[in-house]
Amino acid sequence: MYTVYTWSTPNGRKPLIMLEELGQPYEIVPVNLREHEQFEAGFLAISPNNKIPAMKDGALSMFESGAILTYLAEKHQRFLANEGPQRYCALQWLYWQVGGLGPMLGQLGFFEKKDSALAKEHFSAEAERLLNVLDRALAGSSYVAGDEYTIADMACYPWTQAAASHLELNLSGKPAVQRWLGMMGERPAVRKAMAWKPPAT
Amino acid sequence: MYTVYTWSTPNGRKPLIMLEELGQPYEIVPVNLREHEQFEAGFLAISPNNKIPAMKDGALSMFESGAILTYLAEKHQRFLANEGPQRYCALQWLYWQVGGLGPMLGQLGFFEKKDSALAKEHFSAEAERLLNVLDRALAGSSYVAGDEYTIADMACYPWTQAAASHLELNLSGKPAVQRWLGMMGERPAVRKAMAWKPPAT
Repeated sequence: MYTVYTWSTPNGRKPLIMLEELGQPYEIVPVNLREHEQFEAGFLAISPNNKIPAMKDGALSMFESGAILTYLAEKHQRFLANEGPQRYCALQWLYWQVGGLGPMLGQLGFFEKKDSALAKEHFSAEAERLLNVLDRALAGSSYVAGDEYTIADMACYPWTQAAASHLELNLSGKPAVQRWLGMMGERPAVRKAMAWKPPAT
Repeated sequence: MYTVYTWSTPNGRKPLIMLEELGQPYEIVPVNLREHEQFEAGFLAISPNNKIPAMKDGALSMFESGAILTYLAEKHQRFLANEGPQRYCALQWLYWQVGGLGPMLGQLGFFEKKDSALAKEHFSAEAERLLNVLDRALAGSSYVAGDEYTIADMACYPWTQAAASHLELNLSGKPAVQRWLGMMGERPAVRKAMAWKPPAT
């Protein structure tokens, strides 16, 4: 029996669609966003980013709708090819939705209701919040997803580096992020990749 | 030999980090963002979202940095566990970066340089662009990632549905999106998932 922590938002519906397609039994624990239940301590333990949806399958819990869809697809061997071009075609579009369609429509929805003049303030606050999430994750382990170096570190590093350099965000209150940035920056592969420059034009 | 289409941005560096970690040979094709080369027809064929990075491995090409990292991890069996909690822990943080840290820092960077008052206009234009990308993808196949129904459809549907309903975006010039929305909306699983409502509080 799966337990889905969700609310009636587009991201919140994604695991419901998948579980319905799979015909798997599940229970829903509503996380009332209007009452800010996503910020309660009990939910933070499951979803360190304070966002729905999150899901439990026995002892395993996970957050991020894209990861939940991938987990369910791989576990039940449906709706995602095991290998070959079809697998990566589906994944590229899944990432496209998660990284593009979702955030951009989400922000449009936000600014439909809020004063556009707050954009910079809004994204500054959101950047600070996300870097604190990362700091908490890194406070408990060597790398982003535990004590093994994974592709999650490779994905987070260039952005966190840019936060410190280009965006000049202050990382002084984020010791775990600072430690990890230093450790990552010493890896020869990371140094080489970060040193690449486009040819002068 | 891998061919990476990229530029010196945070997302553009991700595949370089991975290929360096793997010690795999690769060549870089710079896509000069300052000269808007990402909008050239030749690049669109590889990257329908007009974004870097994209990558070719022989006949296989793919876009979206998260998908590229996953592809390389699975092909070379490194930096992502094959199964078990570690795998999904890494994937949830990868999705967290792609859907949260990346877009939010990216937008903050954008509004560091632009007038915040343009926020609504900016996200409206971006939403229109993304829905056109989706329309072109769906014009060539039944589903988002080809002729098979996959988790990419499940991820895109609730957001595209919200674009039409809550955000009141006009889909009249997007016949393939409309066809797909209709087809998706008739699936019993999708209907049931979309009909779920949180309990009254």
